[in-house]
Amino acid sequence: MKAKGSNAERELVSKFWKEGFASIRVAGSGSSRFPCPDVLASNGTRTIAVEAKATKKDIQYFRENQITELIEFSRTFGAEPILAVKFSSKWTFFELFKLRQTPKGDYAISKKDVEELGISFEELISA
Amino acid sequence: MKAKGSNAERELVSKFWKEGFASIRVAGSGSSRFPCPDVLASNGTRTIAVEAKATKKDIQYFRENQITELIEFSRTFGAEPILAVKFSSKWTFFELFKLRQTPKGDYAISKKDVEELGISFEELISA
Repeated sequence: MKAKGSNAERELVSKFWKEGFASIRVAGSGSSRFPCPDVLASNGTRTIAVEAKATKKDIQYFRENQITELIEFSRTFGAEPILAVKFSSKWTFFELFKLRQTPKGDYAISKKDVEELGISFEELISA
Repeated sequence: MKAKGSNAERELVSKFWKEGFASIRVAGSGSSRFPCPDVLASNGTRTIAVEAKATKKDIQYFRENQITELIEFSRTFGAEPILAVKFSSKWTFFELFKLRQTPKGDYAISKKDVEELGISFEELISA
């Protein structure tokens, strides 16, 4: 699971570099005592902080505290907080304000949300 | 050696957070196929990319390609490239333009350079 996550993050980092964004994976995301995203990218004009998940299921959850930390980090760093989900082999990106919370406070993104709520990588970087 | 480096980086990350900079350690710095620093920090106004070393010796070398990559990353990301050296227990920060290259092209920073060429953490973040 951990290697799968790292590989998905590396794939995102490559996509950003190809489009002129310097990008890195964050060390110890999920275990650091400070809030942090999984991936950071910037082209000097736009800075994007990404929480990324790859899944073979039809629905992907993000815990409420992951989202809270992503927002807190992004606000201080001066970055746009973005969720990235790779369903099967396709990445889709989600702006936080578009997402629904479950009654427990978590965020759920399903495959069905991709068309309605998601944007492609090209749309993300040209937004 | 590797753990020592990570601990030094964690220390820097803490220092930045305490002063209102969101900060992260970069995963796989030194092994990534893309250029990257060791630590990144931003308060939304200033973004700093740090190559960091802790040493018990009196002189610390940075290889030329480390510096080239730091510059390349920083230019694309929109960050200020900075070297950080912890001699014994004290961090000192160095702006690249102040540094001398050895005949082989590497950069050498000695304890003697600290007063003449270095700045403190407080000077770095208030610059």
